[in-house]
Amino acid sequence: MELLPRLDAAEVRRLDRAHVMHSWSAQDLIDPPGVVAARGSRFTDHTGREYLDFSSQLVNVNLGHQHPDLVAAIAEAAGRMTTMAPSFAVETRSQAAAMIADRAPGDLDAVFFTNGGADANEHAIRMARLHTGRHKVLAAYRSYHGGTAGAMALTGEPRRWGSEPSLPGIVHHWGPYPYRSPFHSDSPEQECERALAHLREVVEVEGPQHVAAIVLETVVGTNGVLVPPDGYLAGVRTLCDEHGIVMIADEVMAGFGRVGEWFAVDRWGITPDLITFAKGVNSGYVPLGGVVVNAAIRETFGRRPYPGGLTYQGHPLACASAVASMRIFERDGVVEHARALGEDVIGPGLREIAQRHPSVGEVRGLGVMWAVELVRDRETRQPLVPFNASGDAAAPMSEVAAACKAAGLWPMIAGNRVHVVPPCTTTADEVREGLAILDEALAVADARTA
Amino acid sequence: MELLPRLDAAEVRRLDRAHVMHSWSAQDLIDPPGVVAARGSRFTDHTGREYLDFSSQLVNVNLGHQHPDLVAAIAEAAGRMTTMAPSFAVETRSQAAAMIADRAPGDLDAVFFTNGGADANEHAIRMARLHTGRHKVLAAYRSYHGGTAGAMALTGEPRRWGSEPSLPGIVHHWGPYPYRSPFHSDSPEQECERALAHLREVVEVEGPQHVAAIVLETVVGTNGVLVPPDGYLAGVRTLCDEHGIVMIADEVMAGFGRVGEWFAVDRWGITPDLITFAKGVNSGYVPLGGVVVNAAIRETFGRRPYPGGLTYQGHPLACASAVASMRIFERDGVVEHARALGEDVIGPGLREIAQRHPSVGEVRGLGVMWAVELVRDRETRQPLVPFNASGDAAAPMSEVAAACKAAGLWPMIAGNRVHVVPPCTTTADEVREGLAILDEALAVADARTA
Repeated sequence: MELLPRLDAAEVRRLDRAHVMHSWSAQDLIDPPGVVAARGSRFTDHTGREYLDFSSQLVNVNLGHQHPDLVAAIAEAAGRMTTMAPSFAVETRSQAAAMIADRAPGDLDAVFFTNGGADANEHAIRMARLHTGRHKVLAAYRSYHGGTAGAMALTGEPRRWGSEPSLPGIVHHWGPYPYRSPFHSDSPEQECERALAHLREVVEVEGPQHVAAIVLETVVGTNGVLVPPDGYLAGVRTLCDEHGIVMIADEVMAGFGRVGEWFAVDRWGITPDLITFAKGVNSGYVPLGGVVVNAAIRETFGRRPYPGGLTYQGHPLACASAVASMRIFERDGVVEHARALGEDVIGPGLREIAQRHPSVGEVRGLGVMWAVELVRDRETRQPLVPFNASGDAAAPMSEVAAACKAAGLWPMIAGNRVHVVPPCTTTADEVREGLAILDEALAVADARTA
Repeated sequence: MELLPRLDAAEVRRLDRAHVMHSWSAQDLIDPPGVVAARGSRFTDHTGREYLDFSSQLVNVNLGHQHPDLVAAIAEAAGRMTTMAPSFAVETRSQAAAMIADRAPGDLDAVFFTNGGADANEHAIRMARLHTGRHKVLAAYRSYHGGTAGAMALTGEPRRWGSEPSLPGIVHHWGPYPYRSPFHSDSPEQECERALAHLREVVEVEGPQHVAAIVLETVVGTNGVLVPPDGYLAGVRTLCDEHGIVMIADEVMAGFGRVGEWFAVDRWGITPDLITFAKGVNSGYVPLGGVVVNAAIRETFGRRPYPGGLTYQGHPLACASAVASMRIFERDGVVEHARALGEDVIGPGLREIAQRHPSVGEVRGLGVMWAVELVRDRETRQPLVPFNASGDAAAPMSEVAAACKAAGLWPMIAGNRVHVVPPCTTTADEVREGLAILDEALAVADARTA
């Protein structure tokens, strides 16, 4: 009996429509394309068309699709141990934790594993609340922290709206965004200073003695690839230290090579108290996430039970894939490659594109994490599509996406932005190929400018 | 470069203590045993001692440890496609959804995949709230629904306490428990009737027009293997129908063979509106969970987006393992075997044990899901250890566990109960071997009786 029978592409799509409920979608208004194969930076849809993947799927396949060494390691690891309860000490769980702790900054030496980024953020805020004995958690507008109730409560964008009211005690503040400053600043330096003053004021009016944690995406992901101005993270660290507030860096998207560092905080030499991770840790080849925990918080739960867990915590097969992925990263210089791609290819390439297209308001990013922000008018900076647009209102962005796809590039579209987030292993030539397609496609956006 | 280097057992345990943060534990008060190998119904610890696994780990390895066909299928599937974004139609995602829908009762024909049971329950209540436009959700005391904020809010036992306040709008009621009736009943029939009257009254005082859902574990798991009296689920179904309330069956533990049925509700011929699953769907070899959704709720999200998702949703490798597992179940008659083990071996065996030991208050269960409830006194039914006991207060149970382990049986202990929850694939001889060890170990409990 064949345990994994093959289906043709039409049958896959028929069964999908009949039985799969898709996320964030009106089920009758979508027509999900099939994917029949994937390798490296490319995948092939059900019509046989191949795409260069500038999305890394959901910004997770940092090692690209079906990396042969990682696939082989998973097959090998499955034969050794797939699953084992969290209460035991098992080889790949110990290895993965030690390797992650080794790469994490400062005294972040313990790992609480989860299934993904959402539950990592859930556990991080639970730890912070119990460690401090305080309840309030500050999180930023323009952030995404995951799809479960606690992670949704942290989230500072429209995906939260359908799940409210959610976990109590979360307060939202504004983070820095020089291009569209909530603080009317006119330079990154001023944006940094004003964003920190705002955050300090929010802490004051909420009562510092009631604030357990400040959660932030080290580099804001889906909400704009907002790279913090130099000094911002250091300022948050100082504010947290002043008041005994736990600093939580959500690096679910930014960690493990995405910005050309193992952890994005390394770029600024900052040590948070907790770091959450998922995606890039093993490119999502097996679901895995976790929280890296510093010594003080680990100590809080030294003689007092930590009240949380999950069946697949520290899953041996998932941990094996993380171990193998980190070793491939090291063997092949993947982090360094991602950094160089950003500095030498993507950054310069996007800046050239920006010069040619009146629809490009700003390009920004690091490593293999970039945004091209599209506008109707460079002077007024009016976004090419309104906030939270969908359907017809979002047509200009859909048209840019369609133009990219027609030319063989799979883009990531978020709001009025095209995010350029290819795998860390993409070659310079592949990046140039993708940027050339994007360059052409932006004519569609230019036609919409004032 | 070796991507998965081997460590000796001592090093595994050293790294575990240094870097792994364990769930539900005071980190300095535990000394996690190592597990170096596992196969079928047995695993081997770091000292080389072999145990018969009567816990199925966390009641998840329904196919036993390292089932060779499932391991081979995972290795094969990894080579085809490990991960792909949820927005695409992919082979194993379509197959797994179709097979699960095929086995689910009634018109539960769509599957919303998640990473595990907790997020499955989160999405189920989100769907119910949006489908009904109502906010309140009723859940039972003596229940466990998972470790994220929403799933924790549903949970009706002490593991919730460390995470409160949590998601608002959850109301707890009492479910049936004939042996310790909250309703002072003296028969299962009366317990059923009174539990339904209580539930109806709670719905009335909360306002039926405000109740979105009633969530229940079809057979309550960690909180006691509470098998609902005949008629209870039908009564809940009727109550839900009367008021347009969504009936959610949490079958994370009870589904996929555990009670000798594909879905536990089949035992009583009941069709809920949503069923949540995880664990047994693929024995947890790759993290996977989900919600099976009926036609009406699927239709609600036909032209209106469902506001939820996750990166690893419908994970191709995880779905492949579910497909292979379901096919092994069918090929080998695993569901039927589990049912027969319960009827012919575990049930009769435990009832014999009960007769010999004054510490056994009650044995109950179905399939390979049983509880042996231990008491100080059969007349008063005083539990062998108090509610939520830990440390010294829990010593009598720890001693029973130690006696089992010393004789080569790994038991599952929950409160004042020993749960007998071996893999569905355990042989009758292995079950008898385990029951004989339990029989001996209960002398420790007998010595504590009045």
